[in-house]
Amino acid sequence: MTNDSRIWTAALIVVGDEILSGRTQDKNIAQVASWLGVQGIRLREVRVVPDVMDAIVEAVNKLRARNDYLFTTGGIGPTHDDITVDAVARALGVDVVIHPQARAILESYYEPRGGLNEARLRMARVPAGANLIENRVSGAPGIHVENVFLMAGVPGITAQMLDGLTGKLEGGLPLLSTTVGCWVAESEIADLLRETEKAHEGCQIGSYPFFREGKTGANFVIRSVSDDLLKACAHSLEDGLAAIGRFPVPGGI
Amino acid sequence: MTNDSRIWTAALIVVGDEILSGRTQDKNIAQVASWLGVQGIRLREVRVVPDVMDAIVEAVNKLRARNDYLFTTGGIGPTHDDITVDAVARALGVDVVIHPQARAILESYYEPRGGLNEARLRMARVPAGANLIENRVSGAPGIHVENVFLMAGVPGITAQMLDGLTGKLEGGLPLLSTTVGCWVAESEIADLLRETEKAHEGCQIGSYPFFREGKTGANFVIRSVSDDLLKACAHSLEDGLAAIGRFPVPGGI
Repeated sequence: MTNDSRIWTAALIVVGDEILSGRTQDKNIAQVASWLGVQGIRLREVRVVPDVMDAIVEAVNKLRARNDYLFTTGGIGPTHDDITVDAVARALGVDVVIHPQARAILESYYEPRGGLNEARLRMARVPAGANLIENRVSGAPGIHVENVFLMAGVPGITAQMLDGLTGKLEGGLPLLSTTVGCWVAESEIADLLRETEKAHEGCQIGSYPFFREGKTGANFVIRSVSDDLLKACAHSLEDGLAAIGRFPVPGGI
Repeated sequence: MTNDSRIWTAALIVVGDEILSGRTQDKNIAQVASWLGVQGIRLREVRVVPDVMDAIVEAVNKLRARNDYLFTTGGIGPTHDDITVDAVARALGVDVVIHPQARAILESYYEPRGGLNEARLRMARVPAGANLIENRVSGAPGIHVENVFLMAGVPGITAQMLDGLTGKLEGGLPLLSTTVGCWVAESEIADLLRETEKAHEGCQIGSYPFFREGKTGANFVIRSVSDDLLKACAHSLEDGLAAIGRFPVPGGI
């Protein structure tokens, strides 16, 4: 049973010089965020840090302490710049050990691929006390230790690991959302948005303007854990837009 | 004159519930990172924070103190959830004031668009002591105060603001990079990578594996401020790959 009134939170650390250099467009923030939402867990903060021990340790210590869950992506591969396992172990104050099951998985995976070598065996290293997160794509598993979940940097592999965790983490009520679109400049209806949000406790309204087909418009995303509150707020916003001669588009534009 | 030996650093704060909910795929991290690289400034850390005053203030205070420059994207529009200006002012301990030039820009921009109202005037609010960053797309300018640069959340507008700042921030030598690709599992050549990096001080090698056309490969990205060091390191890596019967692909795959 989930506790409906409790809000569960998570943070994400994206480890990788390739994101900070601009070489690689991050795709893990959005996929982890969406997945957490479905689990009833709110992503509260994200940090992108370089492949530098002190930077990872600092972020791990800060974020795991103030969130229910901490996820990391990146830095768990076989090469010299993969130091996330070591950094998490240091943050937790535990040793790095070879996980027997991870070793067995890697032995089996690499048996037809040239066999296990020292670099590949690095991917069986875990902070002491860790469990594995299944990875059906490549051999190397993800790692779960205390409230920290270490996942791959390659988005397709991360997706598999998230799939393996689906339904296994305790969360609260999922944050629901609905969208109302309108061909209006958000700056024309800022008062309406603020007043509608204020009149509907338990709902937040986000305003996302755009410019398309030569016209200014915006989508207003309403979020709440209650479907009833959500609908009431959306109807109120739609009525407010109609009252000033602007056609609301339920579902968004 | 830039000081060649000095490394200039920046941090980025992405403000926005829409990123943390997974609704919107962030595009600002990559574009700010790439732009900074060309300016000779290294992006050292990124934080994504919600539209919550305390969260933004905490991140601003921490990151502006330990970097030469701090950039923010998002939360400078006309609606109730746009609070970045207030948060930066609070972090700096200054008042929020109406910037006369920003007001004039907005008056002119909105003159044929229904005129300036209270919400639109919000976009002329700046932390006291701020200068404006030109924005050729929409009326609202970005804001520069002390070592903090506040930019839009909409990537196309952010791009314009970055363009307006090009060449105006002091930086060091740009970090150069070159890529060597190879159809090899990175786990087969981890020793070669580590030893090549160790033998070429001033160079970092990142390993970015992929799986394409049914085959395992990787791109090895070498970074350095020196073009000579970069070339020497790349040649050494290419020779090392060739020596074990793996064909290097200069420029990457």
